[in-house]
Amino acid sequence: MATNNLEEIEFTANHYSNLIRDERYNRLTKEHVEYFKSILPKDNVICSLDDSEETKKELLKYNIDWMKKYRGQSQLVLLPTSTDEVSQCLRYCNENNLAVVPQSGNSGLVGGSVPVFDEIIISTKAMNKIIDFDDVSGVLTCNAGCVLADLEAYVEERGFMVPLDMGSKKYCCIGGNVSSNAGGLRYLRYGSLHSNVLGLEVVLANGQVIDNLSKLRKDSTGYDIKQLFIGAEGTLGIITNVAISTPRKPKAVNAVFLSTDSWENVQAIYKTAKEHLQEIISAFEFFDEDAYSLVKQHMQLQVPLKEENKFYVLVETHGSNKQHDNEKLHSFLEAIKTSNVAREGYVSKDDQQTRSFWIIRESVPVACSKNGAVFKYDLSIPIAQIYDVAIYMRKYLKEANVYRPGDETSEVINVAAYGHIGDGNIHINISCKSYSEEIANLIEPEIFYWTRDHNGVISGEHGLGLMKGKYLAISKPGSMIRIMESIKNILDPNYIMNPYKYLPKKRITRLSDIRS
Amino acid sequence: MATNNLEEIEFTANHYSNLIRDERYNRLTKEHVEYFKSILPKDNVICSLDDSEETKKELLKYNIDWMKKYRGQSQLVLLPTSTDEVSQCLRYCNENNLAVVPQSGNSGLVGGSVPVFDEIIISTKAMNKIIDFDDVSGVLTCNAGCVLADLEAYVEERGFMVPLDMGSKKYCCIGGNVSSNAGGLRYLRYGSLHSNVLGLEVVLANGQVIDNLSKLRKDSTGYDIKQLFIGAEGTLGIITNVAISTPRKPKAVNAVFLSTDSWENVQAIYKTAKEHLQEIISAFEFFDEDAYSLVKQHMQLQVPLKEENKFYVLVETHGSNKQHDNEKLHSFLEAIKTSNVAREGYVSKDDQQTRSFWIIRESVPVACSKNGAVFKYDLSIPIAQIYDVAIYMRKYLKEANVYRPGDETSEVINVAAYGHIGDGNIHINISCKSYSEEIANLIEPEIFYWTRDHNGVISGEHGLGLMKGKYLAISKPGSMIRIMESIKNILDPNYIMNPYKYLPKKRITRLSDIRS
Repeated sequence: MATNNLEEIEFTANHYSNLIRDERYNRLTKEHVEYFKSILPKDNVICSLDDSEETKKELLKYNIDWMKKYRGQSQLVLLPTSTDEVSQCLRYCNENNLAVVPQSGNSGLVGGSVPVFDEIIISTKAMNKIIDFDDVSGVLTCNAGCVLADLEAYVEERGFMVPLDMGSKKYCCIGGNVSSNAGGLRYLRYGSLHSNVLGLEVVLANGQVIDNLSKLRKDSTGYDIKQLFIGAEGTLGIITNVAISTPRKPKAVNAVFLSTDSWENVQAIYKTAKEHLQEIISAFEFFDEDAYSLVKQHMQLQVPLKEENKFYVLVETHGSNKQHDNEKLHSFLEAIKTSNVAREGYVSKDDQQTRSFWIIRESVPVACSKNGAVFKYDLSIPIAQIYDVAIYMRKYLKEANVYRPGDETSEVINVAAYGHIGDGNIHINISCKSYSEEIANLIEPEIFYWTRDHNGVISGEHGLGLMKGKYLAISKPGSMIRIMESIKNILDPNYIMNPYKYLPKKRITRLSDIRS
Repeated sequence: MATNNLEEIEFTANHYSNLIRDERYNRLTKEHVEYFKSILPKDNVICSLDDSEETKKELLKYNIDWMKKYRGQSQLVLLPTSTDEVSQCLRYCNENNLAVVPQSGNSGLVGGSVPVFDEIIISTKAMNKIIDFDDVSGVLTCNAGCVLADLEAYVEERGFMVPLDMGSKKYCCIGGNVSSNAGGLRYLRYGSLHSNVLGLEVVLANGQVIDNLSKLRKDSTGYDIKQLFIGAEGTLGIITNVAISTPRKPKAVNAVFLSTDSWENVQAIYKTAKEHLQEIISAFEFFDEDAYSLVKQHMQLQVPLKEENKFYVLVETHGSNKQHDNEKLHSFLEAIKTSNVAREGYVSKDDQQTRSFWIIRESVPVACSKNGAVFKYDLSIPIAQIYDVAIYMRKYLKEANVYRPGDETSEVINVAAYGHIGDGNIHINISCKSYSEEIANLIEPEIFYWTRDHNGVISGEHGLGLMKGKYLAISKPGSMIRIMESIKNILDPNYIMNPYKYLPKKRITRLSDIRS
């Protein structure tokens, strides 16, 4: 996990002893590769069957996720350049019982976009064109392989903004964002991909193209099928094109940075913010003193406050009139001070200071990774109880004697909490010196059970992937999982799409049905 | 359609000669009724099998929709008081092959909530309790039978508002709103039910309860199954409980009323509004001169302008600071006047005037119904072409010689257009003296084909129901309809839920499968 030499990274399959290659999937042959070479441009088939060192090296980038936590063993990457090519690739894989992993930016956090064994990687990276932008409706239509930051730059030039933003925006692609139902920093204001995605074009496992690339804001004609692919993490098909609604770019962006000493006060600040900043609030983010200690240590950054405190809150506003927004922000700060729920707080003076507030908040996840290894969680829990998970996990790890603050030999170094409070979404990052299966087994599924017992779900925005796929039943009742399985059965009856992650049980039953 | 004597209203089945009762559904017997009486409170089983005139009269209210356009022949209404009772009712119906129509407010516009033949009506009207309201997150949890206006009153007292509003709010229930994927007047700002509905509890046809009554804003754990029930119009199950996100009630509500002479100008005004009123715009509504002529004639209302014009636009804002909003509205009006896209326009002076602007807009659909019969459409079309459908339909009906403006004997009296331009959703109301199958067959499917050919869909917010169920293929490709059919097969394998509307073909195939 901590090495920079990609070849030294251990195979995922060796890490997780419960994972066994399903021998009912065929192994890749030269004949298969010849077929793909016959339908795709020459450079868009990367195959290591020929034992070339160069292609092996090239394949590592696709086999390993950006955290260097998961490593698959695929021998083939396909980079189709059109929907039709995706369709031909999938149809062939389906007919030849070849397992597939869809991939775009490969910046996921749960191992969902890399293979476990020798699944063929179908990357949408060669499909990265903007198809259309309508500056009356703000609807952007583009290929799934477009990088989020590129889309942002494109619509910003035209006075609009993409409705989602996240740390990985220079790498992640819109297809992957949709597939993992990404949330991010603008969710509070601009909402979920379930509402912002107006249309999708998807290729199913059998190569069939589902053309639902609607640009309409409203549609009440039948079941909203496209919703199934939002968050399906590539288990139901490959998203090839996306139509997304983009809001106007705000003329004024402001921020407030403040600190407080209790979780009750963070909630009180949130309520006050909703009241005073109603229509202009665009983010309500927090991090705690444990997270901040890592920011100071590893990033040499300081909060813009006179004193340190237990909780730090960043409130951002998007509006159309800077002066109006400033007045609202000052009345918000005034109310906070009057009710005595925050000790210190400042409105940013200019865009540069707003940016500097964000840099501190955005440096938190980076700082958390600097100790060696980090276990990352993205829990969704009702706001009143959300911070208790951090308190509980610290206590739990201390009792297990693996977290000994002050002791240099402590396996766990830090339990940091931060996230999107307005959305009820907290990140718990447990930093360790190095990856250890013992620590992993201590944390999981304990943290997930705690979350369930407090009416939460185990993923708010990262998805399940390999990391949490097996814990689906903790967040969803059996009746819902059975419906999911039925839908998987309909759309991918041979279970070739992204196996070993979601719903593995049914896949095994199903394939044996087919064989018998 | 125009009679006030409910008993004179013709049966739907007589109107539509293509509808034939599916004899594979069992007919109601006294034994069935005895079972329902054994599980439900005495007054919650209304049955006309005993030939009592009183119950027959009572049943009319459930068999006929509010427009008095559709009339079913059900002999039994069930009013369960709990999820468990709904479950028992459905399980029994499923086991006994009895067709069912779910109903709540019965205020739909497409005949989706009334039976066609003798389907048993299961009404959620006796399930109308608010379960829970969280004033930090704004999440409201309630029974499906809660009336929308009651929910509005409840959350408004607590400083919040429901994110949807429509003319029928005193009658419609939240379960029906969700089932028909209702849109309404606040959609532009507060978005779709696909994002505002956080959780649903649903009873499937076989009585199984799907507990997905989540109150979380974010959830990335598996396929978002609840989305399938949003807009399913009761064909997949009965929604029993809803958790919905409610925004803060605005402190300031303002409006602008203006007129202009071309559709290009309406679009220019919309773009200017989005630019100047970005974060505070809450509605952008329009109606045309034809709609206005009916408002003047039937409602004796006048627009608050010196001169008449071709198009009238109502822009509403929701904000937290009245003075700020007023300044923004005046700068918007200034920009409109400078660019010369509107002739006349005024900002409302006070809440009373804001209300008076809305009364005019809201009187449009009422006025359209005053001529006798009205054919109502809720098309979703890209904004640039949206008004062309009104122009086209007028020309088309004139060429067919049924629309002869100025001629008192003209079958078609008026073709009015109005709606939610910001959402790309137009209402076309074709007023006639009386209902005529000839006119109906002239309009449909012509208006739907035009919509499809201009990248639109045949329903933006009313749903399909009986009226448009058979035209689903005009809006959705075959590949998507097949997925819908598969989902129907999974969740309602005996096709007992709301038959004769959605996806009838498959139902017939399926039942014969079962019998053979």
